[in-house]
Amino acid sequence: MPEYDIAIRGGLVATSFGAARCDIGIKDGRIAAIAERIGDAAQVIEADGLFVLPGGVDTHCHIEQPEANGTVHEDSFVTASASAFAGGTTSAVCFIPQFKGGGILERFADYKARGAKGMLDHAFHQIIADPTDAVINEEVPKVVAEGVRSLKVFLTYEPLHLNDAEFIKVLLAARRHGCLVTVHCENYDAIGWRTRALLEAGMTAPKYHAWSRPRVVEREATHRAIALAELVDQPIQVFHVSCEEAAEEIARAQARGLKVWGETCPQYVTLTAAHMDRPGFEGAKFMCSPAPRDTAEHARIWEMIRRGTLDVVSSDHCGFSYEGTQGKAQNGRDAVFRDIPNGIPGLAARLPIVFSEGVSKGRIGLEDFVKLTATNPARIMGLYPRKGVIQPGSDADIVLWDAAKKVTITNALMQHAIDYTPYEGLEVTGWPAMTIRRGEVVMRDGKVQAEPGSGRYLPRGPYDLVKPRGITPDGFVAP
Amino acid sequence: MPEYDIAIRGGLVATSFGAARCDIGIKDGRIAAIAERIGDAAQVIEADGLFVLPGGVDTHCHIEQPEANGTVHEDSFVTASASAFAGGTTSAVCFIPQFKGGGILERFADYKARGAKGMLDHAFHQIIADPTDAVINEEVPKVVAEGVRSLKVFLTYEPLHLNDAEFIKVLLAARRHGCLVTVHCENYDAIGWRTRALLEAGMTAPKYHAWSRPRVVEREATHRAIALAELVDQPIQVFHVSCEEAAEEIARAQARGLKVWGETCPQYVTLTAAHMDRPGFEGAKFMCSPAPRDTAEHARIWEMIRRGTLDVVSSDHCGFSYEGTQGKAQNGRDAVFRDIPNGIPGLAARLPIVFSEGVSKGRIGLEDFVKLTATNPARIMGLYPRKGVIQPGSDADIVLWDAAKKVTITNALMQHAIDYTPYEGLEVTGWPAMTIRRGEVVMRDGKVQAEPGSGRYLPRGPYDLVKPRGITPDGFVAP
Amino acid sequence: MPEYDIAIRGGLVATSFGAARCDIGIKDGRIAAIAERIGDAAQVIEADGLFVLPGGVDTHCHIEQPEANGTVHEDSFVTASASAFAGGTTSAVCFIPQFKGGGILERFADYKARGAKGMLDHAFHQIIADPTDAVINEEVPKVVAEGVRSLKVFLTYEPLHLNDAEFIKVLLAARRHGCLVTVHCENYDAIGWRTRALLEAGMTAPKYHAWSRPRVVEREATHRAIALAELVDQPIQVFHVSCEEAAEEIARAQARGLKVWGETCPQYVTLTAAHMDRPGFEGAKFMCSPAPRDTAEHARIWEMIRRGTLDVVSSDHCGFSYEGTQGKAQNGRDAVFRDIPNGIPGLAARLPIVFSEGVSKGRIGLEDFVKLTATNPARIMGLYPRKGVIQPGSDADIVLWDAAKKVTITNALMQHAIDYTPYEGLEVTGWPAMTIRRGEVVMRDGKVQAEPGSGRYLPRGPYDLVKPRGITPDGFVAP
Amino acid sequence: MPEYDIAIRGGLVATSFGAARCDIGIKDGRIAAIAERIGDAAQVIEADGLFVLPGGVDTHCHIEQPEANGTVHEDSFVTASASAFAGGTTSAVCFIPQFKGGGILERFADYKARGAKGMLDHAFHQIIADPTDAVINEEVPKVVAEGVRSLKVFLTYEPLHLNDAEFIKVLLAARRHGCLVTVHCENYDAIGWRTRALLEAGMTAPKYHAWSRPRVVEREATHRAIALAELVDQPIQVFHVSCEEAAEEIARAQARGLKVWGETCPQYVTLTAAHMDRPGFEGAKFMCSPAPRDTAEHARIWEMIRRGTLDVVSSDHCGFSYEGTQGKAQNGRDAVFRDIPNGIPGLAARLPIVFSEGVSKGRIGLEDFVKLTATNPARIMGLYPRKGVIQPGSDADIVLWDAAKKVTITNALMQHAIDYTPYEGLEVTGWPAMTIRRGEVVMRDGKVQAEPGSGRYLPRGPYDLVKPRGITPDGFVAP
Repeated sequence: MPEYDIAIRGGLVATSFGAARCDIGIKDGRIAAIAERIGDAAQVIEADGLFVLPGGVDTHCHIEQPEANGTVHEDSFVTASASAFAGGTTSAVCFIPQFKGGGILERFADYKARGAKGMLDHAFHQIIADPTDAVINEEVPKVVAEGVRSLKVFLTYEPLHLNDAEFIKVLLAARRHGCLVTVHCENYDAIGWRTRALLEAGMTAPKYHAWSRPRVVEREATHRAIALAELVDQPIQVFHVSCEEAAEEIARAQARGLKVWGETCPQYVTLTAAHMDRPGFEGAKFMCSPAPRDTAEHARIWEMIRRGTLDVVSSDHCGFSYEGTQGKAQNGRDAVFRDIPNGIPGLAARLPIVFSEGVSKGRIGLEDFVKLTATNPARIMGLYPRKGVIQPGSDADIVLWDAAKKVTITNALMQHAIDYTPYEGLEVTGWPAMTIRRGEVVMRDGKVQAEPGSGRYLPRGPYDLVKPRGITPDGFVAP
Repeated sequence: MPEYDIAIRGGLVATSFGAARCDIGIKDGRIAAIAERIGDAAQVIEADGLFVLPGGVDTHCHIEQPEANGTVHEDSFVTASASAFAGGTTSAVCFIPQFKGGGILERFADYKARGAKGMLDHAFHQIIADPTDAVINEEVPKVVAEGVRSLKVFLTYEPLHLNDAEFIKVLLAARRHGCLVTVHCENYDAIGWRTRALLEAGMTAPKYHAWSRPRVVEREATHRAIALAELVDQPIQVFHVSCEEAAEEIARAQARGLKVWGETCPQYVTLTAAHMDRPGFEGAKFMCSPAPRDTAEHARIWEMIRRGTLDVVSSDHCGFSYEGTQGKAQNGRDAVFRDIPNGIPGLAARLPIVFSEGVSKGRIGLEDFVKLTATNPARIMGLYPRKGVIQPGSDADIVLWDAAKKVTITNALMQHAIDYTPYEGLEVTGWPAMTIRRGEVVMRDGKVQAEPGSGRYLPRGPYDLVKPRGITPDGFVAP
Repeated sequence: MPEYDIAIRGGLVATSFGAARCDIGIKDGRIAAIAERIGDAAQVIEADGLFVLPGGVDTHCHIEQPEANGTVHEDSFVTASASAFAGGTTSAVCFIPQFKGGGILERFADYKARGAKGMLDHAFHQIIADPTDAVINEEVPKVVAEGVRSLKVFLTYEPLHLNDAEFIKVLLAARRHGCLVTVHCENYDAIGWRTRALLEAGMTAPKYHAWSRPRVVEREATHRAIALAELVDQPIQVFHVSCEEAAEEIARAQARGLKVWGETCPQYVTLTAAHMDRPGFEGAKFMCSPAPRDTAEHARIWEMIRRGTLDVVSSDHCGFSYEGTQGKAQNGRDAVFRDIPNGIPGLAARLPIVFSEGVSKGRIGLEDFVKLTATNPARIMGLYPRKGVIQPGSDADIVLWDAAKKVTITNALMQHAIDYTPYEGLEVTGWPAMTIRRGEVVMRDGKVQAEPGSGRYLPRGPYDLVKPRGITPDGFVAP
Repeated sequence: MPEYDIAIRGGLVATSFGAARCDIGIKDGRIAAIAERIGDAAQVIEADGLFVLPGGVDTHCHIEQPEANGTVHEDSFVTASASAFAGGTTSAVCFIPQFKGGGILERFADYKARGAKGMLDHAFHQIIADPTDAVINEEVPKVVAEGVRSLKVFLTYEPLHLNDAEFIKVLLAARRHGCLVTVHCENYDAIGWRTRALLEAGMTAPKYHAWSRPRVVEREATHRAIALAELVDQPIQVFHVSCEEAAEEIARAQARGLKVWGETCPQYVTLTAAHMDRPGFEGAKFMCSPAPRDTAEHARIWEMIRRGTLDVVSSDHCGFSYEGTQGKAQNGRDAVFRDIPNGIPGLAARLPIVFSEGVSKGRIGLEDFVKLTATNPARIMGLYPRKGVIQPGSDADIVLWDAAKKVTITNALMQHAIDYTPYEGLEVTGWPAMTIRRGEVVMRDGKVQAEPGSGRYLPRGPYDLVKPRGITPDGFVAP
């Protein structure tokens, strides 16, 4: 009987610390050995000429997510799993919703059952949209016990947004239970004012979405989230940073020694406000929040990545089609921008875009790519070292990467249930040749093959060891 | 008939740009001439060995201010005028209150009548605590027409605080009418949480006032106020900056070219949190908001003054005695810190403290002193060149300053209606020898002599010429 | 007999602190009074509609300066005085040369005699090009006693440049005698290398002057000069800052509390490297050191002026014609850039350019203009309050300024002895209508009338009061 | 026959990216496999409870170095190898000397022969003290061909220091040949002045060594080295950074995107100027350059390490005893500080100090420790991936680390030929239990066993791939 189930031979095995040309031996779904030469294996995969990387970890995905109006995001865990595998991603962290007036436990069971039907390994953030005492004191401990180790908070969006008092309540709960808090940072009242004013002025087209939420609105909320987290002494991750102004707030916090992390997304290095100004209603395809800025901002985002201020690139995948009853155009092609669903799909495009714009264009190195898309997300979200790294004992989640392959992105290549991709026509260099999930080949040359229901729920550990700063038992620091 | 009413001879006339030994000729209450030698005058004042400075302009004074509970601050315009003259100050900007549910016009007439009874020249800020449409659209234009050119907003304090939407509404109104907005920057919800938690933990003594509102709470609100002002494109002045963290936000805004000014107060370069920890209830005497920090912070505040980030030193004079029904101890000497009135008196002490700690100790020059206490406040508040400067045509508001005089501050020297001074025992070098208001000697060697009712209301002009940044008529800037 | 010799009536009298519409009375060459209405005067000048400003103080002028090769700069004190008056400048600080192997005293007498023949009030910097013990210990004290209170050092130029040991020697001498040190900051060896390499590569045209000395060469020497001055605890002024990189070093030093000042010149907000790339040999007309940069840099220089980092604008006037035996083309029109005399004339153009580019274009205010061109130079160079300000007792050096006048600069307007101006064709808004030097009208409507020999030598006082930082008697600070 | 020569079982294998509990298989002196369970091996080492780390790489060691006066540093390659192994270090980069008037090739052969007699794997920096054309054009290419890929330059020290022109010459040569330049940054002239002045003032004791070279002297030279490297477009590493001021210059350069690296040493986080003030002559034991600062500076150095500005910690090991003809006291115990040999030993103490002060005290993580002491030095010096990492194919240089062991440092534990250690009495937590060099156990429980002559010379590759910035063939960048 061969020693290994699979041997991957001769690739350049890259992790976030470096690369070596060597073999990998897989046994029982885990990495068993990394060696100059792996012995007998039931299956041999030749990786000569390919990069052998940890499977992508996408820690910001809205999949099959129920909305308050009773609808559910179009991409199911099955279709999203296919999309993820097509793009080299093997794990995702999704969102358990909470609606005003409702609890979270009821949602947890339902949503976990949805996740179990897919093929992707998955974990959950818990959205807190209504931090009642019951939810905070009784329900949060229970979902944490189930391995949900991050609470997601919105500082904007009707009806999700929390005011400062509610936000502080969530930060305190997270501190008590060793959870991370992830935050959507934009100022609710400011966007509200501008939106009303724009609509009153007849400025209703999709492009005014960007006008309604300029950079300063994001910077304000970012600084506020950091300041309140600093007050409570609770780590946070700022989601989807779109501009240098906001990233600079994170950099300042990090320089003060705070545990504040920053995430960005492929849209913030490829899309611009000009996309939303395309003829007719097509601009709606590019609407997400924060709004994409301009090409000069792309360079600044890369610089913030290079400086380490932004250390995770997630997709913020959001499953709305263009057409259809849940699509961008659900309220008609003359809907005012306020009434157009927000969010764009990006699960499959994430790795190719970051690799192409980053590594192929010389902005970052291969190790940085692995860090940004797999290792860092896994560490920050408490999935490491099970996920995000190639080392003995870790899950055998691996993507074989063809660094030279040139591809023009089309919606068909995305393999999701959505009828468009905002990256249509984008040319990339570098594409996944094979995806392996826990020792099983789930995508080869674009063909996805995996059993629905084979994805596993990942209970998470704490984000990292946090050293408290000499806090009194009551949670105060002397001024 | 002599050419001048008064000649001040031989002093070192100092303004914010320099100093020259020369004479000043006063006629009809105004500066008529500055000359090497002034000719005939009805009255000659020998100023040999003294500095001849513009009378102090204190742009942050709570005098005879009605409170929502029907009480009125103890210092009346008469007693406060005496205190001001005793300390070398000749003009003050006070606050017209607004209470939730009430308008502002009704208050304006009443408060103007109160002001008319004093001796001090005075102007008003308009507090906006309830920005209803009626107040904003109908009443604000009317008080502006009366010469009230600044709207004061609180981001904390029950029940005065505004939320972001209300604050934006005030910023927009100010922009429309060419007013300045002055802001008390502390985060309401954060202070609320900490206060409740401290009280629950039995930490109730006066010193916990400081624990309830650490620096980060001030920094957060300062950044938010700046960001929203930037969004609306409206100049603001941040009141009573107590720490470098908050001042740094102002410095960053100024570096971006924004019209953001910062004020500080004598308490932030002399008092500390330790004062509030004095035995028994005495700590209450030093309670004001933001809370005084520590001596290291004093040095940083001076540095921020030196850098020009903080360019006004006001008193934030607040007329609460220690004893009595309106005093600090009105709820008993075991009142929890939350229930102790906030604010300290400082009208008379302002100039001596800034001069002594600043000029006498070599931290700033004489010109800087004049700028901080007279010229800058007058300019920013639209009182210049009528006030704040010695030049032909300006009001003859002058203080003769004895730079060498050593004085130990006592409450008697303050000449106010309040039963204590937080600066009791502080030794200062430099003291006003004579105060002249519009050509009338109103204080000589500590003796105040001025007719109640002789103070004039000062309708104000705009703060400064503001250049809008290419705004569309609707108030938007393209993102 | 009238009280005043001259009354200037009804102008807007502006100083570095503000402006008032009033009259000025002049008596015996000095400002006698500033008043709402000046009485009898022998001569009345109507200034209605004009600004009344302190005469320009140009603290960086090479006039009639002897060179090591025996030649003398073409602009004599007589012609340069005419040029200065034509441009609204009434005082200049020039340079006493020193040549390697020679002393300074011998030069002082000669150069003072040259100065005495002109009409401009003048003071001197002492160039130190050979700091022998005899020069430092015996001669420097003597020129200081004569009122020379600044030592000028070159960190580049053959044969003027000093190495670090020599520079330290000069800094120590200045510290001992209460002099300022002014520094030309560019790295000698770096320029030497690049110049040789460019010439070897056949890159010899005037435009390569800029290639030979990029920004980093200026930044390096600026930082080094500051560091050594910091070590010795000696104030310095960095001359002719051309770029943000160098200015940033000054800003950092100022933030550390050091007495480091920065000067810039009109060429650094108007000329660019592209000017040196004009066809044929014409680029030589714009060659000066540091080399002009580009238009983006102009904006950064204005920003550094706005921040107060650069607080003096001098001309660095240098009297080389284009043609002639001492001109730019003296070595032929195919001379390599290294062999073309460096420096451009600018005495008359300084005020109009700073006013037009600064005040008329809204970059700075009128007070800033006065500060940059008159008050600050006078203060830093120890000429204040005799020069640089309009106040009782100061010299009656005044320029009446027509803010609305539009002029296209031509060489004829410069009224110097040089055959070109680098600003030919530049359109400016704002022009001097009349120049008064010590109470005498020396220029009216462009016509200069002043007696050669009427200029006075100005012995200078110390730059400012310097507070030593707890230095031991030996000059050490404990590490 | 067993598959592996050695199996290390059950340790926590840590690299610069993370850690996993697993086995390591060694074959033919190299890492052959990393696996959950390694199969048959000739020798099994149980590492349960230990960290398994890459052997230390010390890229700054003066070993058996000939001096201009004919002497040779006391620590030979044999004794220094023992010391290195005792402390967990397996590779070192040493210095080939050059003396004024002499070449480098002659030294290379001699020094390589010395190196060959030791046990430590070793590479060389080439000191350039006399960059004649012959040396630069003829000899440098030859030593580069032999695998010497870094040129070392001193900006201070008599007679080693280079002036700027010479330094530029070396930078150009390095650029031509793909070498790194390493720089000792202190200002020669400034130190010379202060030293003379101190000695004249009778301040001669060892402690005045620190007075002679304050922080500003280091900052100046650091900025200058960076500026000239920027001009030439050549990467440099700044050696032994002792203070935040100098590190800040490196941080600024890195923020501009320059390839500038910073090294620090254990002495700069443990020793202070106060050590040099010990009674009698004992202060000499702590004399090195730059001089140790104070404990507040230690915290700042850690912060600069945490920020990544300083990314290598080397020993700057220097073999002078206290006693003896080559020792600190060679010129008597009343020698003035200038005449006392500079430099301290630290090869064996490096890893324990960095681990104890860093990891054990919670300032850095285990990964950071590996990066600072092994991976980064190897990468920057072109020894990676042969050295500095545990991955298949790399040399089997491994240290087994007992993180819990508490040791008080004594000179005996250092196992060098020097009669003292400056760290005598320092208590550390964490100590090497075993050192393996290319698959051979060379230290076990403090007992070193290795054959003299078994150390290998390591020809180095380039530091990293450098992307030139659009340079013309001549080496110019347009301004």
